[in-house]
Amino acid sequence: MASSEKLAVSRAAYREAVRILAAKGLVESKTKVGTRVKSIDAWNMLDPDVLAWVFVNEPNPELLNSLFELRKIVEPAAAGLAAARRTKTHLKLMQDATERMARHTLATEAGRQADRDFHTVLLQATGNPYLVSLTTGINAAVNSTTIFKQRENLLPRDPVPDHVLVLEAISAKNAVRAQKAMRELIQLARSDIPMPERR
Amino acid sequence: MASSEKLAVSRAAYREAVRILAAKGLVESKTKVGTRVKSIDAWNMLDPDVLAWVFVNEPNPELLNSLFELRKIVEPAAAGLAAARRTKTHLKLMQDATERMARHTLATEAGRQADRDFHTVLLQATGNPYLVSLTTGINAAVNSTTIFKQRENLLPRDPVPDHVLVLEAISAKNAVRAQKAMRELIQLARSDIPMPERR
Repeated sequence: MASSEKLAVSRAAYREAVRILAAKGLVESKTKVGTRVKSIDAWNMLDPDVLAWVFVNEPNPELLNSLFELRKIVEPAAAGLAAARRTKTHLKLMQDATERMARHTLATEAGRQADRDFHTVLLQATGNPYLVSLTTGINAAVNSTTIFKQRENLLPRDPVPDHVLVLEAISAKNAVRAQKAMRELIQLARSDIPMPERR
Repeated sequence: MASSEKLAVSRAAYREAVRILAAKGLVESKTKVGTRVKSIDAWNMLDPDVLAWVFVNEPNPELLNSLFELRKIVEPAAAGLAAARRTKTHLKLMQDATERMARHTLATEAGRQADRDFHTVLLQATGNPYLVSLTTGINAAVNSTTIFKQRENLLPRDPVPDHVLVLEAISAKNAVRAQKAMRELIQLARSDIPMPERR
């Protein structure tokens, strides 16, 4: 328990923190050995808290590229499934999110929340709880585009047209068109970030 | 703390269990309200422990279909990235896993471990930590095929030929062929499970 003294926190608080990190696969505690940070391969990088810790400030370029790579793999396929399975409620919520994006723009937190809502409802419309569990990861990538643009003082590109194309394809239950529109949306979002893509 | 008495566990053990479930997004505790189970939408279904809890016994058919759907989205794309990025070490480990599958067959735990190792190394070869974090989810689907076949007393199909095709494509750095071979491998594994696929 030397660590709790070094950090000037109570033993109880230190123990609880270690237990939560252990539950997320970041550290392991062994009797007589003590607590060790596990190899990054064993971390659950898609855990919502781990994502928040990683992306709270400056996102590491490699991690950002990796997250966009995941997004490019998952989100077009999810848009295709959403086109086949969405209910009218999903459609209404996505329409509402698109309208809020248009009204508030990505320069405001309300507009960015609408952007995240759009992608959250799309994953819910797949009806697949494992895809829904990727929501926080997808949204960390969605967010990052705006963070970079604000830092570089760039005018936010109008995100509404590319979202409308995805929405129309899902509304028309056209899976192929929804996949294509989502691929284009992600490519536009990625190209807004002034950072080279991974080969 | 009435719940700890009902379950006949100490208050400390109950509190620790609730904290770990809260860290994984399964429950939330509020002052004066108490502890509530969160909506399943908020659960982190891809958390390794949650996957283990869900798949320890009879996998729910809908969850199994959802997990195979995720696998079909992620694993062919991962095979393509692995073909482009794998090192000689990754290749050796995948060759070794294939040889162990051939030697032990899926009727033994050693053979099933080799099967999981193959898919684990393939995800590592993508160099993408977010794809690596999907290892436990992918492996839960890999495992389930064997569980079902054992339950139904079916002879395990020889899994080596379809794995060799993936391995050869990755060895040849042929991303398109690796994607195709992995799609076929997953389709074969899925068709081994006597349970209708989701439309």
